[in-house]
Amino acid sequence: MKRLIIDMDDVMADSTGQFIEIYEKEFGVRILREELNFKEEMEGFPTHHHEEIYNFTFRKNFFRTMKVNESSQEVVRRLNGKYELFIVSSAMEYPNSLNEKLDWLGEHFPFLNWKQFVFCGSKAVVYGDFMIDDMVRNLETFNGEKFLFTAPHNLQYNHFNRLNNWKEVEEKFL
Amino acid sequence: MKRLIIDMDDVMADSTGQFIEIYEKEFGVRILREELNFKEEMEGFPTHHHEEIYNFTFRKNFFRTMKVNESSQEVVRRLNGKYELFIVSSAMEYPNSLNEKLDWLGEHFPFLNWKQFVFCGSKAVVYGDFMIDDMVRNLETFNGEKFLFTAPHNLQYNHFNRLNNWKEVEEKFL
Repeated sequence: MKRLIIDMDDVMADSTGQFIEIYEKEFGVRILREELNFKEEMEGFPTHHHEEIYNFTFRKNFFRTMKVNESSQEVVRRLNGKYELFIVSSAMEYPNSLNEKLDWLGEHFPFLNWKQFVFCGSKAVVYGDFMIDDMVRNLETFNGEKFLFTAPHNLQYNHFNRLNNWKEVEEKFL
Repeated sequence: MKRLIIDMDDVMADSTGQFIEIYEKEFGVRILREELNFKEEMEGFPTHHHEEIYNFTFRKNFFRTMKVNESSQEVVRRLNGKYELFIVSSAMEYPNSLNEKLDWLGEHFPFLNWKQFVFCGSKAVVYGDFMIDDMVRNLETFNGEKFLFTAPHNLQYNHFNRLNNWKEVEEKFL
């Protein structure tokens, strides 16, 4: 069975949406998703708020209340069993996120087993046949076949195969 | 730089000692470390207490208050920099343990960076040149060179190279 490694933030979970929501609550301005296109993470938000925005990630429930990306549950459920599936998330930077991510997976992906979860600092240590991730740096250290999952902050990169949404994951892997 | 993967429980941390301590507090009987020799985990403790003993691992501070194994700090400090070091721990089964292990590493191994930590369910997903682990099942799925770190519960296994203590890790790797 081929091993498929899937990222959480901005792949399974709508992190970009979470930043937009909290930013609006905090500063009264709704940033459009399109305004973030082709800009590194944060760069689409006003510069003088970058520190506050980074600190959102340390707030209680930031990771726990993220929305699930469209069709990800259904497609992950079907991938599971056809592939040796691992959910690998860079969580170590945000100590709060460890249990919140575990609970989030338990709620939204209850058919996965805890043996399939990996919370790391660097993804350089994992290996597999395929990796789906929104971060170029995670794909760069991976030895298998790499797929960049489209997010506003990665539209400027064109050196990896791209999967634009979960329907495309389905078409590619199922 | 060669990648070295090191386990926490019963390698860096004295988990066996923690079980013995809590068992004595709970049941008034001091089990000697030697009584656990050559027996699978738990098997050295009275059978009618196995469920309670397993439940120790879900108690607050079980992982946070473990003692550090002798010489591990000094040797890990010297290994760090000479090897690409990752601390890989099977933590996902015990949700409490995630933050406790992170805090424990921060206290006792402050010279390590969070990028070097991996909390997983299954270690089959990590790769490297060397792995030091007390669990045969973790070594079995590893593709690099494997070293069984001696613990009472693994004395009956002889199909891996063995490191009996941190002095032997030092001699082998430094």
